[in-house]
Amino acid sequence: MLIPSLLVFSLLFVSSFASVQDFCVADLKQSDTPSGFPCKDPKKVTEADFVYSGIGKAGNTTNLIKAAVTPAFTAQFPGVNGLGISIARLDLAVGGVIPMHTHPGASELLVVIEGTICAGFISSANTVYFKTLNKGDIMVFPQGLLHFQLNSGKSSAQAFVSFGSAVPGLQITDFALFANELPTELVAATTFLDVAQIKKLKGVLGGSN
Amino acid sequence: MLIPSLLVFSLLFVSSFASVQDFCVADLKQSDTPSGFPCKDPKKVTEADFVYSGIGKAGNTTNLIKAAVTPAFTAQFPGVNGLGISIARLDLAVGGVIPMHTHPGASELLVVIEGTICAGFISSANTVYFKTLNKGDIMVFPQGLLHFQLNSGKSSAQAFVSFGSAVPGLQITDFALFANELPTELVAATTFLDVAQIKKLKGVLGGSN
Amino acid sequence: MLIPSLLVFSLLFVSSFASVQDFCVADLKQSDTPSGFPCKDPKKVTEADFVYSGIGKAGNTTNLIKAAVTPAFTAQFPGVNGLGISIARLDLAVGGVIPMHTHPGASELLVVIEGTICAGFISSANTVYFKTLNKGDIMVFPQGLLHFQLNSGKSSAQAFVSFGSAVPGLQITDFALFANELPTELVAATTFLDVAQIKKLKGVLGGSN
Amino acid sequence: MLIPSLLVFSLLFVSSFASVQDFCVADLKQSDTPSGFPCKDPKKVTEADFVYSGIGKAGNTTNLIKAAVTPAFTAQFPGVNGLGISIARLDLAVGGVIPMHTHPGASELLVVIEGTICAGFISSANTVYFKTLNKGDIMVFPQGLLHFQLNSGKSSAQAFVSFGSAVPGLQITDFALFANELPTELVAATTFLDVAQIKKLKGVLGGSN
Amino acid sequence: MLIPSLLVFSLLFVSSFASVQDFCVADLKQSDTPSGFPCKDPKKVTEADFVYSGIGKAGNTTNLIKAAVTPAFTAQFPGVNGLGISIARLDLAVGGVIPMHTHPGASELLVVIEGTICAGFISSANTVYFKTLNKGDIMVFPQGLLHFQLNSGKSSAQAFVSFGSAVPGLQITDFALFANELPTELVAATTFLDVAQIKKLKGVLGGSN
Amino acid sequence: MLIPSLLVFSLLFVSSFASVQDFCVADLKQSDTPSGFPCKDPKKVTEADFVYSGIGKAGNTTNLIKAAVTPAFTAQFPGVNGLGISIARLDLAVGGVIPMHTHPGASELLVVIEGTICAGFISSANTVYFKTLNKGDIMVFPQGLLHFQLNSGKSSAQAFVSFGSAVPGLQITDFALFANELPTELVAATTFLDVAQIKKLKGVLGGSN
Repeated sequence: MLIPSLLVFSLLFVSSFASVQDFCVADLKQSDTPSGFPCKDPKKVTEADFVYSGIGKAGNTTNLIKAAVTPAFTAQFPGVNGLGISIARLDLAVGGVIPMHTHPGASELLVVIEGTICAGFISSANTVYFKTLNKGDIMVFPQGLLHFQLNSGKSSAQAFVSFGSAVPGLQITDFALFANELPTELVAATTFLDVAQIKKLKGVLGGSN
Repeated sequence: MLIPSLLVFSLLFVSSFASVQDFCVADLKQSDTPSGFPCKDPKKVTEADFVYSGIGKAGNTTNLIKAAVTPAFTAQFPGVNGLGISIARLDLAVGGVIPMHTHPGASELLVVIEGTICAGFISSANTVYFKTLNKGDIMVFPQGLLHFQLNSGKSSAQAFVSFGSAVPGLQITDFALFANELPTELVAATTFLDVAQIKKLKGVLGGSN
Repeated sequence: MLIPSLLVFSLLFVSSFASVQDFCVADLKQSDTPSGFPCKDPKKVTEADFVYSGIGKAGNTTNLIKAAVTPAFTAQFPGVNGLGISIARLDLAVGGVIPMHTHPGASELLVVIEGTICAGFISSANTVYFKTLNKGDIMVFPQGLLHFQLNSGKSSAQAFVSFGSAVPGLQITDFALFANELPTELVAATTFLDVAQIKKLKGVLGGSN
Repeated sequence: MLIPSLLVFSLLFVSSFASVQDFCVADLKQSDTPSGFPCKDPKKVTEADFVYSGIGKAGNTTNLIKAAVTPAFTAQFPGVNGLGISIARLDLAVGGVIPMHTHPGASELLVVIEGTICAGFISSANTVYFKTLNKGDIMVFPQGLLHFQLNSGKSSAQAFVSFGSAVPGLQITDFALFANELPTELVAATTFLDVAQIKKLKGVLGGSN
Repeated sequence: MLIPSLLVFSLLFVSSFASVQDFCVADLKQSDTPSGFPCKDPKKVTEADFVYSGIGKAGNTTNLIKAAVTPAFTAQFPGVNGLGISIARLDLAVGGVIPMHTHPGASELLVVIEGTICAGFISSANTVYFKTLNKGDIMVFPQGLLHFQLNSGKSSAQAFVSFGSAVPGLQITDFALFANELPTELVAATTFLDVAQIKKLKGVLGGSN
Repeated sequence: MLIPSLLVFSLLFVSSFASVQDFCVADLKQSDTPSGFPCKDPKKVTEADFVYSGIGKAGNTTNLIKAAVTPAFTAQFPGVNGLGISIARLDLAVGGVIPMHTHPGASELLVVIEGTICAGFISSANTVYFKTLNKGDIMVFPQGLLHFQLNSGKSSAQAFVSFGSAVPGLQITDFALFANELPTELVAATTFLDVAQIKKLKGVLGGSN
């Protein structure tokens, strides 16, 4: 007696509320919107949409900065779309550095997994806040402010950085200034840097003009 | 010539914009507000306000659930106040479990640091999404939905869980139902659980009535 | 003289500003987005899109819980899409109960229309707040927290519950735990409930495994 | 054995997370903030803070508009502070009318409890949407748009209107134009109304100048 | 040596993060959503999408109100879609007036470019705030409240008004009341205006019924 | 008869809804909060709180950058507190430049009032968008991205820049890097700039270490 009636109730609830939006796994083939990508058909969503293994391995640090950033933002991990959160992995070889950069769309919280990292940020009032972090230490970087991380230890370092947005963005100052076709004279006029310095870094980073 | 005038310009900027709100370190002595705690005097803020070492050590897992949650929310780490992000550390001894729970105020992103964790959540449509996660795997849990994590490996496990809020909240279903003075008959009426089962768990968890 | 020129002005305004977004009636055939469904063509919107009669009749309470929830969320009433508000009707026969549940996406405000309802919620600190409500009384349930309503009177009861979201969601704890294929051993491990109790409720609610 | 250890665990959780912000009952004696009033000390909050009986009785409709609006916004019901929701009761005697008005801060959802109400709103494109509503019908009014409700039946009418904000605001056009010291010539210049009409309504509504 | 490795790093970054959402130029051909229009393909976006010359010329003020509003909202300037900001130009000939109106979706900030403007708004408490503004003065108008601007000088006036939304909306009270088919008796009942006054303004503004 | 009853109704409304939050003029003496400053007592608010003349005059451009930024953010103009909007004035003498900078908290919309301005921004994908703007042209700069403005004409230039926040913030890259005590070796390591270049600019901008 009891079983059928509750069961009917249960099924009714499932159908009545099935369109409630708990999550919105990105359908990257559709056009993005200001609030994130349109949702994949909920019927086709599986547990695999909420799990990602792409940041499980160390990034390749055999490059000039001896460091790697491996993101799990909406583009890499569509399950975070619309949920206001994402993560990235930082790997820093000895002497490695994540150059001065900003995230235009979110604050960041770093946790050191391995090694020693000197990290800091600069406020709008041009005050500098930086500290040496050891394994297990966390540091927060407010939204949109210039910040950096560098391996200040004698062994490789690893960290996870989480963000309060699924699309925090990343603008590395040097790449913004020197890795594109922004004319040298405009860079000089807007940064006070010497032309020779600009041309040197444009050469290194692949910029032109 | 050049130095003094730019310097003056610089100082002017610093004073003009000094009240811009980059961050709002919580002054926990004042009353909370719907957007977070009032800010500590910015002049007294130092780098120490943005760094926290409290989740660097494993929590004590010598308890029944063989697990520990160590949070770095606003209450523990006032630097995240108003920044829409926070983190916690999970330690799970062999057989340890973070019981079924919700975070009313934020989605969660888990990254496995060590060991093997079986984690899952249940949607509003009552669909279950769960998977076994290994070191480096990440999983996202949408805001407000029931979820759990348990150590499904043969050694201790560790994870960090980050949130898209500085005050994500935590409601453990069993504690909400059995660890307070909610009358047994109300629990029975609203959960369909047997009275004996309720009384048993109230006994275990310190509830009354 | 006066009439034509102002009229022209009026028509100009209508065309200039016609694309301003006052509302966004859901086009349920398109993919959902994190902010809600894409909008129906405004030219095809009529007053019927903003009115709904589906919660005007009592829901069927001839079921085990002797209660019914009749929602007017985006799925049922596309006119609320994007407006941050929705409503549902509760009908409780004598002895009826809306079991322990949460709304992951919004706070709730209940107003008693008829009868006597005992309602309550449990905070993150595991404190219980509950009270007997009479006709005309209102009670607020903060977002994401476990709460319940039960008819504590001798006649049928009715209430309206409004939400601060067009898609508040609804997760009934018992259905989440017992009305799906979540393995019994996982339920046991994450709730401390006895296996026999779990199997009994899985039987009642149509769950398996 | 089992009881003490879990109990300890439980108590630890309660204290660790006690400052989590589930709700923020307004302390109306402190200064308001853009996000709402500062919170009453959580330790002093009781179930009474979440329940309100002030809209349980019909408002006094023995006035010119033969109608009454009885609000339960933050000022009357501090429990909704910060929760993004509120409610008001409408009572309309035969011939009663809630004059043309807007809510600057929220959309509105009306449910008819008794009688027959003609309700409508006007969009930015100056399109009119109005309909006669019967008991149990609901209608949504998008944020900030002019709307009205009038009793179009032969008996008194009652409705509840809920809002997606704890402080939706209320601006009745006639009162804004005629019930203050806004100079008649400014009203005339900005509304095209005849001076005699303005002076007549200023007289009725207590305006001057 | 240095050049190739950093260059590779740079290119990797560009491709890894290329889908980060910095902006979302509206694709007006797709359906709108509650958060704004879907985004134009980022690869087809050029500097022209972020620049607009449509408010560079004075609007035509040879009409009854001797004024013109020239907007640069999403519909006219798709580059602001999703960015929470927009602007409009006001031109007021001698004696010109922007009639009493509201913006349902945003607060407004006016800056006087030329001439003398008397501007004001009315609060929910029916208090009037108005002042005569000269060149360079700014005034803020809180969201959703009735406000007006009129040329109180002896020469033409110009102003820019910026908004905290890409779709602030605009509802001119007179047009909402008199420029459509809203029945005269409904206008009379909800505004207390005389029927003759209503019919006169309906005649002027092209309304019917 | 008519007058007294409506008047009473009017007065009742004024008192009932007087605490509705239309605006929140900043009380800068209290502690800031994440949503802005606590509100000045509404009874003491006058029209003067909503009007500001501080950006009516050209800023002093007799400095090295031959430019001035004059803000009207919450700190200067408390009336915008909580309203999500603010403005600043740019004055650029011949050859003047607003150096490369970001606003961490808001998008920006520039309108040229006088002269010719070359303005541009750089996206997260390191793409440059820049254009020469003439009087009346507008350009939008998405939140948090590096951008600049320089006078590219033969006479002085003026512009207003509005923001979708009352506290947009301002971080000038050069000042963040060179106008404080951030150690030269950290700047070098995180920007790839030559030490000589850094020391030169630190000298110019008043930095140390």
